[in-house]
Amino acid sequence: MPALSQADVSGRLSTLTDWQIESGELTRTFKFDDFRAAMSFVNRVAELAEKAGHHPDIDIRYNKVRFGLVTHDAGGLTTKDFDLASTVDKLN
Amino acid sequence: MPALSQADVSGRLSTLTDWQIESGELTRTFKFDDFRAAMSFVNRVAELAEKAGHHPDIDIRYNKVRFGLVTHDAGGLTTKDFDLASTVDKLN
Repeated sequence: MPALSQADVSGRLSTLTDWQIESGELTRTFKFDDFRAAMSFVNRVAELAEKAGHHPDIDIRYNKVRFGLVTHDAGGLTTKDFDLASTVDKLN
Repeated sequence: MPALSQADVSGRLSTLTDWQIESGELTRTFKFDDFRAAMSFVNRVAELAEKAGHHPDIDIRYNKVRFGLVTHDAGGLTTKDFDLASTVDKLN
């Protein structure tokens, strides 16, 4: 799977809300009521990630969870990253 | 709960294996066979953290999990951090 061009990245990014590019990763931070709610969401995303065979970086800070997506094998962002981002958004 | 002195931190740190101080946090990174095993461990630690009322920073990178402990209210490391580190080690 090839990395998307900058133009394609911009195009796909414009279809998402609350996601941004940081250091080459597609990222979004979610805030929950507490740690338990944050962990519950992380587990739902983890199940999806396993099914997709594509695993986001996950940073948990009590009630905040940051996901970071990039396709290491492609050396950049691919449709897999944007597709997983959309799927994560649908869980929220 | 007061922050431990540097001498007390050094003393407690010497009783732990594989933990280190990084940017004022007590940290350890665990490596597992895969993402599923990493998530399983994270969930066991999360349960302990809830019971202790003390929540580590958790960074998940596929099969690697980094825990970071500090007591924000105390502005440093306390016995709560070292106690939770010991408990996490017993899970592994």
